[in-house]
Amino acid sequence: MLEDAVGLGAVTLLGVLEQAYFSLQVIYARRKFSVSPPDTGGPPEFQRIFRAQANCSEYFPIFLTVLWLAGVFLSPGLSAVCGLLYLYGRLRYFWGYSASAQGR
Amino acid sequence: MLEDAVGLGAVTLLGVLEQAYFSLQVIYARRKFSVSPPDTGGPPEFQRIFRAQANCSEYFPIFLTVLWLAGVFLSPGLSAVCGLLYLYGRLRYFWGYSASAQGR
Amino acid sequence: MLEDAVGLGAVTLLGVLEQAYFSLQVIYARRKFSVSPPDTGGPPEFQRIFRAQANCSEYFPIFLTVLWLAGVFLSPGLSAVCGLLYLYGRLRYFWGYSASAQGR
Ligand SMILES: N[C@@H](CCC(=O)N[C@@H](CS)C(=O)NCC(=O)O)C(=O)O
Ligand SMILES: N[C@@H](CCC(=O)N[C@@H](CS)C(=O)NCC(=O)O)C(=O)O
Ligand SMILES: N[C@@H](CCC(=O)N[C@@H](CS)C(=O)NCC(=O)O)C(=O)O
Repeated sequence: MLEDAVGLGAVTLLGVLEQAYFSLQVIYARRKFSVSPPDTGGPPEFQRIFRAQANCSEYFPIFLTVLWLAGVFLSPGLSAVCGLLYLYGRLRYFWGYSASAQGR
Repeated sequence: MLEDAVGLGAVTLLGVLEQAYFSLQVIYARRKFSVSPPDTGGPPEFQRIFRAQANCSEYFPIFLTVLWLAGVFLSPGLSAVCGLLYLYGRLRYFWGYSASAQGR
Repeated sequence: MLEDAVGLGAVTLLGVLEQAYFSLQVIYARRKFSVSPPDTGGPPEFQRIFRAQANCSEYFPIFLTVLWLAGVFLSPGLSAVCGLLYLYGRLRYFWGYSASAQGR
């Protein structure tokens, strides 16, 4: 059981690092565009980065839940691979959304 | 152990589907009221649907945590039943909030 | 395995209670500053409390994930202790942010 969990754990850790990266981008954007907390407005460039991170954060618990449900009840290997694809998709979503709202 | 987890897993899956349903409602509302991302303002109808989904998303990790803690350390059956009631309550909250802020 | 999980489970429960406390503060602040849902604007005092809770909620799933990953794959005891420190840090963050944006 714990062996099966190693792959899922690795994808989970990668997901955590990705979320940390998204948060850092918001922190950098807050500095760059001078949007101090608690403000969440500001120029559209900032708002896109802010919303991209918020949207990814919103789906993060759902992603983890599906990853582990599928990993435990269906197949740990397949679930880990799909998880990796999801994380890659989220990275592209974040970069696309940061660049333009149509790029999501 | 895995057998006990089946009921909890089923309630968890139902919770994921409910969250997906809430997200779809926000996507439909964005189209209907022409509120393109990254905007989160717009008419009160949209804002209620947007906030209803945001509020449910905020509590989703807490719900899952309590569901599994109670399921593992107390009783899986009772926990699954309470989880179902919570999900039903959330559905009513979402519909009520979408209809009027007093309907939460 | 389940014995190891008791400490992690206790920290998890404490985290849930902390999030519940943060949510209650937002509910009190909504009353105090008359900011009815679905509004999220209002006076800076309210916005700081609102954002403090939103920020803590955003990191809550990440906290739980790291707590359990480290607890299962590294050390349950060390992970539980670090979890406690994190929760204490979050409490200070929340109080600091509520008092002033610089106090985060
Ligand atoms: N919180 C989301 C829920 C629905 C959703 O995930 N929408 C997708 C497709 S419209 C999105 O990319 N939303 C952008 C955003 O959340 O800023 C929203 O406000 O739109
Ligand atoms: N994020 C919530 C935290 C507190 C909470 O859960 N409040 C309840 C009762 S006032 C609610 O329904 N909030 C509506 C909302 O989040 O839009 C808020 O802003 O109010
Ligand atoms: N959602 C966060 C993501 C980045 C973050 O965690 N920022 C820290 C340091 S600037 C913070 O305290 N943000 C305050 C807030 O979220 O209101 C944000 O909007 O800032």
